[in-house]
Amino acid sequence: MSNSITIPRGTADILPSEIARWHILEFQARRVMELYGYREIRTPAFEDVHLFKRSLGVTSDVVNKQLMELSADKAGFALRPEGTASIVRSYIENHFDKKESLSKFYYIGAMFRGERPQKGRLRQFHQIGAEAIGPTSSHPLLDAEMIALAMEILDAAGIKGSVLKINSLGTPEDKEAFSQLLRKQLAAQTSGLCEDCQNRFERNVFRILDCKTEACRKIVKSLNLSIEHLSQDSQKYFQSVQEALRTLKIDFQVAPTLVRGLDYYTHTVFEISNAALGSQDALGAGGRYNRLAADLGGSENVEAIGFALGMERMLLAMPTSTEEISEPIQTIVIALSRDDQPLGFEIVSTLRRAGISGDMGYQKASMKSQMRLADKLGAQTVILIGEDERKNGYVTVKRMADGTQEKVPVKDHFKTLVDYFKK
Amino acid sequence: MSNSITIPRGTADILPSEIARWHILEFQARRVMELYGYREIRTPAFEDVHLFKRSLGVTSDVVNKQLMELSADKAGFALRPEGTASIVRSYIENHFDKKESLSKFYYIGAMFRGERPQKGRLRQFHQIGAEAIGPTSSHPLLDAEMIALAMEILDAAGIKGSVLKINSLGTPEDKEAFSQLLRKQLAAQTSGLCEDCQNRFERNVFRILDCKTEACRKIVKSLNLSIEHLSQDSQKYFQSVQEALRTLKIDFQVAPTLVRGLDYYTHTVFEISNAALGSQDALGAGGRYNRLAADLGGSENVEAIGFALGMERMLLAMPTSTEEISEPIQTIVIALSRDDQPLGFEIVSTLRRAGISGDMGYQKASMKSQMRLADKLGAQTVILIGEDERKNGYVTVKRMADGTQEKVPVKDHFKTLVDYFKK
Repeated sequence: MSNSITIPRGTADILPSEIARWHILEFQARRVMELYGYREIRTPAFEDVHLFKRSLGVTSDVVNKQLMELSADKAGFALRPEGTASIVRSYIENHFDKKESLSKFYYIGAMFRGERPQKGRLRQFHQIGAEAIGPTSSHPLLDAEMIALAMEILDAAGIKGSVLKINSLGTPEDKEAFSQLLRKQLAAQTSGLCEDCQNRFERNVFRILDCKTEACRKIVKSLNLSIEHLSQDSQKYFQSVQEALRTLKIDFQVAPTLVRGLDYYTHTVFEISNAALGSQDALGAGGRYNRLAADLGGSENVEAIGFALGMERMLLAMPTSTEEISEPIQTIVIALSRDDQPLGFEIVSTLRRAGISGDMGYQKASMKSQMRLADKLGAQTVILIGEDERKNGYVTVKRMADGTQEKVPVKDHFKTLVDYFKK
Repeated sequence: MSNSITIPRGTADILPSEIARWHILEFQARRVMELYGYREIRTPAFEDVHLFKRSLGVTSDVVNKQLMELSADKAGFALRPEGTASIVRSYIENHFDKKESLSKFYYIGAMFRGERPQKGRLRQFHQIGAEAIGPTSSHPLLDAEMIALAMEILDAAGIKGSVLKINSLGTPEDKEAFSQLLRKQLAAQTSGLCEDCQNRFERNVFRILDCKTEACRKIVKSLNLSIEHLSQDSQKYFQSVQEALRTLKIDFQVAPTLVRGLDYYTHTVFEISNAALGSQDALGAGGRYNRLAADLGGSENVEAIGFALGMERMLLAMPTSTEEISEPIQTIVIALSRDDQPLGFEIVSTLRRAGISGDMGYQKASMKSQMRLADKLGAQTVILIGEDERKNGYVTVKRMADGTQEKVPVKDHFKTLVDYFKK
């Protein structure tokens, strides 16, 4: 085995024993998304690297440290680190702004960030996300709907105890005012910041608010922040979002230090965390990004809001009681000798074609080991075929639950047997 | 728009208007796979590049020309060009041979080949595949089952008129005998082969059989091939596979020139084509690969068979009558004025939470344009809310089919309205 090749670090196989939980999560997400009028879109796993540089910001960690680029003649492409930029690219390229006043997309898929793998950080991870994009589509009710949608997906997945934090970054001008306010309040304390944050002070002061270093967190806590640097209109918009959330009885906290790591956000931003996840407690996040479509070459008036939930995180927070196994198999065909195999094969094939799940071992194996396998697969019945059965045109069906046996005739191209299982 | 970034060549967005056909295909594939006892596995989109080099063969086009490798500090990894190698890697790494006598996996996912994009060739494409892997699991009935499974998925997708070709490559020794036979028959005609095939003559003579060049095809047609170079055991195995296919009433042609482009195949190989696809007529292919697990560092006795179907090809061959649209939305809420919006928002949110799909436009729009939107979305009803409704505790529900209207009371936290829609 020294010769064998292993899975890349920071990635994981989803094995058949784990797949049922993923299916449940995907089913519930699709169900809720469609209730809200969102429709699925799928974009490629890789895109022009400029798409991400332009949308996420050249100073962001995602672009600087985490982008997984392709090599050689495929240079200029990178695996997508998140879903929003690609969907906006598709929105523009397919002229959705000419087709409908508001486009409501959802996606479920793999994302890639090549940071050095560490606990809780994956190079390939999976997200469920939604985006509502349209010309002059900003509206506090739409923001509240987007947050409600994220919360309801968590609810449908059986995840309890999530905490919603919201904030508003306002317009690009408000953001600029906020960064000046931050620099002013931090100016006297820069020497206490970590080295990274000392660099961030000029380049991207918002990122200091997200720093995980103890010293920086202490300084951030001491800041005196509110939403007063926002314009009157931005404040009013944010109040209306909060009002709508209260109408929907969705609990939230206003968090003035919540800024999100990506450049493209404006106005409403939100983050959902869950204590069940420990120190890496974020389940997902989102916000409004009114400038992104224009920045990527789309119409000036196209505005948007969206969110993404981390599927691996959601699965950790999901109750284990939803860990159902796949549908158990209905029957296992056991041929008692090699001569009985062709009939057994015909029977299992016929049953499957009639929609009855079945399996059959083709290798030589004892009756006992075949019964054990049937038990392990959760089979409701086994079909026994021996010389007597074969010669007299019947099979023996044994119920696993109580061990009772029944002779079922095999006639009319197995119709009698199919009917037995369909009844 | 000159400023905008476009989708990478050789990739495609799957837009909401196209997604229903993908959902149907995936649903049917999962249903049939599970009937046959196959369970889903998901492996990462990228793997150690050596996995593909070792499994697909260093002389294969896939490895030589098409592998999409990652750059810089992520060098040594490549996007998966197919699904089998990754699944065998996972099988070995997770010691499935110690857990069960036969592992039956299926997958649905994106594959990547970076060849220069051309008609019908995509850099990102999608496959549905199955693999049955286990210690000494070779059995003609399992080979026939695998072929039947592929054919039944096509059938479930409504694809008619597929043509199945099968062949046997036999053991590695048989393969060697076959390559000597081929060289012998071709020796006098090498000067008539294309330049590529003249190189292939020594390096990998099988690939000459797949060459698309007119001259090579003519020479290949003139060859006198049968299965007589196979050992007695290999011939008998192949006959049993054919017999089992006849039992299942699956039509097939034996094609002595069918070899498949990947190194890892042994014994049974098959290919399914469909005339509806024109010149690129392959829907999918598969075969037995008894040496691959051992070659990748697994146990010597682990044998396997599998197939992959191209989803883009299947969608082209699927009848357009299955092109159903998504579930139409149940209701659209129309607030007649700004003052009616909060009540409308509460109503649409409450209905969604109760499992009734609904939508509401938040932007100012005329009654007429909102009715047009409801019509376009296939809404069964609209809910009208104006001043009279709001003040007197009811809403007007209008049926789109016949235009009839009804006053529905709004009481008990909207329970009356939810009941109206649930009835």
